[in-house]
Amino acid sequence: MEKIDFIANGTVTTPHGFMAGAAAADIRKKKDNRMDMGILCSTEMCNVAGLFTDNQIKSPSVILCQKRVLEGKARAIIASSGCANASTGEQGFASAIEMTALAARVIGAKPDEVLIANTGVIGMQLPMDSIRAGMNKITVKTDGGHDFEHAIMTTDTQPKEVAVTVKSGGNTFTIGGVAKGSGMIHPNMATLLSFITTDANVTPAYLKKSLQDAAAVSFNMVSVDGDTSPSDTLLIMANGLAKNELITGKSGMADIFQKAMNEVCIYLAKEIARDGEGATKLIEVNVKNAATLKEARQAARTIVSSNLLKAAIYGNDPNWGRVTAALGRSGTQVEESKLDIYVGKIQIIKQGTHVPLDKVKATSMLKQKEVSITVVLNMGAARATAWGCDLTEQYVKINAEYTT
Amino acid sequence: MEKIDFIANGTVTTPHGFMAGAAAADIRKKKDNRMDMGILCSTEMCNVAGLFTDNQIKSPSVILCQKRVLEGKARAIIASSGCANASTGEQGFASAIEMTALAARVIGAKPDEVLIANTGVIGMQLPMDSIRAGMNKITVKTDGGHDFEHAIMTTDTQPKEVAVTVKSGGNTFTIGGVAKGSGMIHPNMATLLSFITTDANVTPAYLKKSLQDAAAVSFNMVSVDGDTSPSDTLLIMANGLAKNELITGKSGMADIFQKAMNEVCIYLAKEIARDGEGATKLIEVNVKNAATLKEARQAARTIVSSNLLKAAIYGNDPNWGRVTAALGRSGTQVEESKLDIYVGKIQIIKQGTHVPLDKVKATSMLKQKEVSITVVLNMGAARATAWGCDLTEQYVKINAEYTT
Repeated sequence: MEKIDFIANGTVTTPHGFMAGAAAADIRKKKDNRMDMGILCSTEMCNVAGLFTDNQIKSPSVILCQKRVLEGKARAIIASSGCANASTGEQGFASAIEMTALAARVIGAKPDEVLIANTGVIGMQLPMDSIRAGMNKITVKTDGGHDFEHAIMTTDTQPKEVAVTVKSGGNTFTIGGVAKGSGMIHPNMATLLSFITTDANVTPAYLKKSLQDAAAVSFNMVSVDGDTSPSDTLLIMANGLAKNELITGKSGMADIFQKAMNEVCIYLAKEIARDGEGATKLIEVNVKNAATLKEARQAARTIVSSNLLKAAIYGNDPNWGRVTAALGRSGTQVEESKLDIYVGKIQIIKQGTHVPLDKVKATSMLKQKEVSITVVLNMGAARATAWGCDLTEQYVKINAEYTT
Repeated sequence: MEKIDFIANGTVTTPHGFMAGAAAADIRKKKDNRMDMGILCSTEMCNVAGLFTDNQIKSPSVILCQKRVLEGKARAIIASSGCANASTGEQGFASAIEMTALAARVIGAKPDEVLIANTGVIGMQLPMDSIRAGMNKITVKTDGGHDFEHAIMTTDTQPKEVAVTVKSGGNTFTIGGVAKGSGMIHPNMATLLSFITTDANVTPAYLKKSLQDAAAVSFNMVSVDGDTSPSDTLLIMANGLAKNELITGKSGMADIFQKAMNEVCIYLAKEIARDGEGATKLIEVNVKNAATLKEARQAARTIVSSNLLKAAIYGNDPNWGRVTAALGRSGTQVEESKLDIYVGKIQIIKQGTHVPLDKVKATSMLKQKEVSITVVLNMGAARATAWGCDLTEQYVKINAEYTT
């Protein structure tokens, strides 16, 4: 018997042996006493894997974290919001190293057992005095996951947390996750910041593979604004405390582990899209019958990223030509005469030609909080789903005033 | 002696032998009696060349126009706004063919001597009854260029017209141009609609080459919103009436002709960026010392297209990290430690690290109507310039209500 269940109020400290804590370290410029720094750790050493931004300009924190993840083992993550520690050169490296050492002291670990992730404004140095003082205020607790999530939020309006319990034969294990959005979201390898924990007993190789596969159908299929951050970091820590039979790529439990990973990551990715900066609606784009998986993904992401479509959906304007315009520039093979497009269940394009629409009905479909678009290419058998959000005046307002 | 002079109030009917006219044909849904259909023609047969959208989903009008341009000769262009005639299938083809035949009758030409371009809402059929009635109202005149330009405008707030006189040795000729923006602008081969006329005597082969070269440094370096239209059309008509010594790729006048073409196209491209939907500012991004020309162009276009940067510039927010974030995801080779970035003349990134800024000074630089950003990669010798505009609440408002 195999079963995946969502756990009420689940988070990264739901799996056995994980603890977290956070503090207001005054890293962000607005001294509003909001929590902005947190530690997530395991009582036992963990197998770890990570995916990082493809942006060529990576923050010193990302470069340090990548190096440590390559070792395959870690016990903790120090994360903060308010300052991304990007474009900060040598001084930025020194700050990142010191920050992990300070966190290591709090939990009694070695500095190189601590991973790091920072999010926030690019092009300013980490305020190390505030960070040193703030670190002393952190206490890690078994129910500290919610505080940790709040500490990594920037323009997010909602925390993004999840946990699932997996039962398979006589084995039970748990996977938890948190994420933050909500601007500069068009991930290429991973989203801005997301941390997954599990008490499952998994080999390092399969941990890495399942993280990659889960990211491919979740974080890498989300776009808020087409901009990829220099800080994107997705990390997983597995401490093995569930004492399940070891999961490898070949074991019977590989499939259910992957399925649970996908559920956790898709949940978080959709929450990021739904809570995109200024967003009022979640947009889901399904591309079916594409010639290749790569093309299906590319078409879905291009459509869900179109400023024009996003603005039309915000305004409940059934301007469906914007779907075909985005599809046509996506690089995906299209034969217009084979193309069918649906919004919800209503067909709007049939064999490449628009279907006359009942405008009232069309507009009412758009007034939902979730708008689903399905593009059927009839070129092959591949499919993909991408998520995004509408483009609103509020998005502009948030980003016109971000550092001021 | 070689000289290029801009002509006051110049437009497409400024070169010898060109005439134009327009009418309100009620093509757009708002029956506001605005001019929305126009004919541009030459008294003599012209050599013609064209560049069209790379969007795989092209409007029937684009497909018809491409076919006729391949013949190399034409006498007129029929253009309209309000309906793009895209996603309209067989009926759309029939309408496009009829529209050119109707226009041919007005000026006494053959149908296949008439080119066509339509812009406006995608996914609706051309209202042929209105077009038949409207066509009878058009009279072409030697000063009709301004009316023609007004007839192709959609959300443009300003007409975009230009003409230059070129003197070279004993030869004098004129080049005129018009364009319309102002949304769905991220051209790939050409911009939405732009028409160039010249009385110069030019071989068809060099006409085509010079149009391609001019588009590469002008229309193809402009972005308003990252969306490529299914209607992008750039056409040039050359009637030879200036009776200058024939311009070929090898003649002495090839260079000055290209230079004048570039001036005309860059002028129009910048006007499109400046008048982007909802825009309050023109943004110019110069990329210098790139490894290759392709990379220089790619970096300039990616930066000028970043929603986040565009919103920050709108809000006078010196959030320069958004320049490096966009550069890093552009695919262009970057070595962070070699990177210098300037806004206006003020250096903001030196060898990859941010330079502490006087915030008051930085903000005041942003309050200009034109903001210039220079990225020096120090990886080679190639350079490129791209133009765009800021992202405002007004852009969202325009596009949330476009068809409603």
